[in-house]
Amino acid sequence: MNQNFEPYYAVIFTSTRTEGDNDYNEMSERMETLAKKQEGFIAVDSARNKVGITVSYWKNLEAIKSWKQQSEHLLAQQKGRNEWYNWYNVRICKVEREYEFLRKQESHE
Amino acid sequence: MNQNFEPYYAVIFTSTRTEGDNDYNEMSERMETLAKKQEGFIAVDSARNKVGITVSYWKNLEAIKSWKQQSEHLLAQQKGRNEWYNWYNVRICKVEREYEFLRKQESHE
Repeated sequence: MNQNFEPYYAVIFTSTRTEGDNDYNEMSERMETLAKKQEGFIAVDSARNKVGITVSYWKNLEAIKSWKQQSEHLLAQQKGRNEWYNWYNVRICKVEREYEFLRKQESHE
Repeated sequence: MNQNFEPYYAVIFTSTRTEGDNDYNEMSERMETLAKKQEGFIAVDSARNKVGITVSYWKNLEAIKSWKQQSEHLLAQQKGRNEWYNWYNVRICKVEREYEFLRKQESHE
């Protein structure tokens, strides 16, 4: 185990959408752009099929709180409840351990 | 904040796939079926676009360890490195807080 691992935080946002776009995709891109500018932002991953999963990573809980209270993000959260989502769940998590696999490039003989 | 919240664990598995199916979808369904039978399993969500995200939820770290060492799952992990994934990342996280939104059914007047 990595002795030097420094914990950080993940916000797991799981959701199901209402019908129609209703400017959702535009807002979604805008929120990603804004989140990346926040202090303490590390990374974000998103995918959506039946369910949508967005996981954002942050240096600490203060950074998550600041992002939750960011003014334009507050409007997006309101619109999310009014228009975009039938359901969502937000989980605040402490990342305690991590490991990675990367395929070696195949050499061309 | 919910005073009675009992922490549990999330495993965030993020990945990019190699070309072709190579029995990946069959294995993926099989692993989900098996995981659900494991002691301590709570739930799992998956979505894949450019990146695939699977988040599984577990009662404790022991349950995660047991699933990681389950014999058929070990074979799948090996095949994942040999065939299915170009890259993956596994994060073990403690879920510390959670909240949910559910749209109210609209009444038909």
